[in-house]
Amino acid sequence: MQSYVLNGERVAMDYDAQYGKYLKLFEEELNQVFSSLNKDAPQLIKDVMIYAVNGGGKRIRPVLCLATVDMLKGDVKSALPFALALEFIHSYSLVHDDLPAMDNDDFRRGKFSTHKKFGEAFGILAGDALLNFAFEICLSYSEPNEKNWHAMKILAEYAGYSGMIAGQALDLLFQGSNADEKALYSVYYNKTSKLLMAPLLIASVLCGGKYFEELKNFGYNLGIMFQITDDILDVEGSLSSIGKTPNKDEKEDKLTSVKIFGIKGAKLKAKEHYKKATDALENIPNNTFILKLTEKICARKS
Amino acid sequence: MQSYVLNGERVAMDYDAQYGKYLKLFEEELNQVFSSLNKDAPQLIKDVMIYAVNGGGKRIRPVLCLATVDMLKGDVKSALPFALALEFIHSYSLVHDDLPAMDNDDFRRGKFSTHKKFGEAFGILAGDALLNFAFEICLSYSEPNEKNWHAMKILAEYAGYSGMIAGQALDLLFQGSNADEKALYSVYYNKTSKLLMAPLLIASVLCGGKYFEELKNFGYNLGIMFQITDDILDVEGSLSSIGKTPNKDEKEDKLTSVKIFGIKGAKLKAKEHYKKATDALENIPNNTFILKLTEKICARKS
Repeated sequence: MQSYVLNGERVAMDYDAQYGKYLKLFEEELNQVFSSLNKDAPQLIKDVMIYAVNGGGKRIRPVLCLATVDMLKGDVKSALPFALALEFIHSYSLVHDDLPAMDNDDFRRGKFSTHKKFGEAFGILAGDALLNFAFEICLSYSEPNEKNWHAMKILAEYAGYSGMIAGQALDLLFQGSNADEKALYSVYYNKTSKLLMAPLLIASVLCGGKYFEELKNFGYNLGIMFQITDDILDVEGSLSSIGKTPNKDEKEDKLTSVKIFGIKGAKLKAKEHYKKATDALENIPNNTFILKLTEKICARKS
Repeated sequence: MQSYVLNGERVAMDYDAQYGKYLKLFEEELNQVFSSLNKDAPQLIKDVMIYAVNGGGKRIRPVLCLATVDMLKGDVKSALPFALALEFIHSYSLVHDDLPAMDNDDFRRGKFSTHKKFGEAFGILAGDALLNFAFEICLSYSEPNEKNWHAMKILAEYAGYSGMIAGQALDLLFQGSNADEKALYSVYYNKTSKLLMAPLLIASVLCGGKYFEELKNFGYNLGIMFQITDDILDVEGSLSSIGKTPNKDEKEDKLTSVKIFGIKGAKLKAKEHYKKATDALENIPNNTFILKLTEKICARKS
């Protein structure tokens, strides 16, 4: 059994147990927050927010954030508001992305997408509410200090018009066009990497800026690899395994790694970025868990 | 000529000149922010954000924020990031509210609404981008201190699922229903008052919490009055004067003050809340400008 780190103490724990520990911390905090939502707010908007966040996702961004703070021997609990905020932002982006005017997807993780279940208007509103709530949670549950301020600033930048939203915009702009590899990378960097870099860089900032550049490089490659794997699953997966409509990318003539490199080429690219991602971590002590997580993301079937 | 206050110094200045001063401060800061947007971000998303914010609005929320800080003899410039943030949040709410799945309005302030001009997908994305940018601007342009943290927290709470978004949700939920006066007030309190209370309370917090309760009471009544005036204009106004499609409320069987009280009753209610609003200010020194602003809002024709 390999040795991992939790809250700075070295304990023998296998990968699944450690993932479970972070997940438990996160879900408990999430439940606490959801059960103490403002009683005066309309029940329906709260129900839609909860539906959107509790859709069966793997909580990769929160787990990455907590695990990175743990790896850097920081205070894992201090990262919880940010872990929640990251998942809220990820969730809102999916809700809005699934809307008919955007990607128009009726399914998400094997369930009805939020607007399909609650109507478009509440899809739009609940998405807005989750984005807003991400900042509200950090401002309510974190100490008002410079570290947390800086962490929130990273969250805002990486999620915003020059971050994830830029990626969403580029994704739409390149649809149906004869874009090239450079365009592909600009979409994936913004659309996917930015919101995987954010948990890592927030963790670094909460730990005094430790390994900031290494984690940035790791997150960039993790994101590209993640998105290429998604493209491959879109071609090779089924509705039941990937939980959303397969082969949508090709039908909609989206710019994907499979379109640019072919399926074989895309698989090679995924491996290349896997290597770059893990190389970026090599000088960081206690990296075992995150290395394993990276491997799992690369090899995932859903 | 009456005496107003600017940056704590008493100067003889008429209402329009003082409004112009705040407006100039705001527009200069806005231009500076828009001209230094990230060069790597897609041009289109930036263009849509700018279109949505520069639609010819009166900048009431930013002016209220700056004028209140001035009235309380605080540092007006320290409030500028919040003034911007408030206008970004107001603008995003209009962009999303105009979408076909929401209020479905093709016009806004006499111009095409944002989604009508740039398509629905970019309407959704630019709205998201503006909401996110509101926090990014505060985090980038304000000092990381407790006062500013608290001001951002107010912004998040008053704009969020238990604030303005609650109002949007209630507005949808009560459409076509036989709701009563109590329901009407819950919609207007959340939908309109909350985002008019926010600039006042942020200003108070930036000035050490001065007159917090008085400003809260003022903002509540200002908002109700503002919304009732809107209802009256919807019935009595034309496309050219109000800049949006008139008589929409009745066609869509929306819950409005005119529906509940009749047009005459609504006018009486507006006067009642005007009185309550101005009464709430009576113990605050240097209130002349804000009293006049309140009067103008009550008497507006567009």
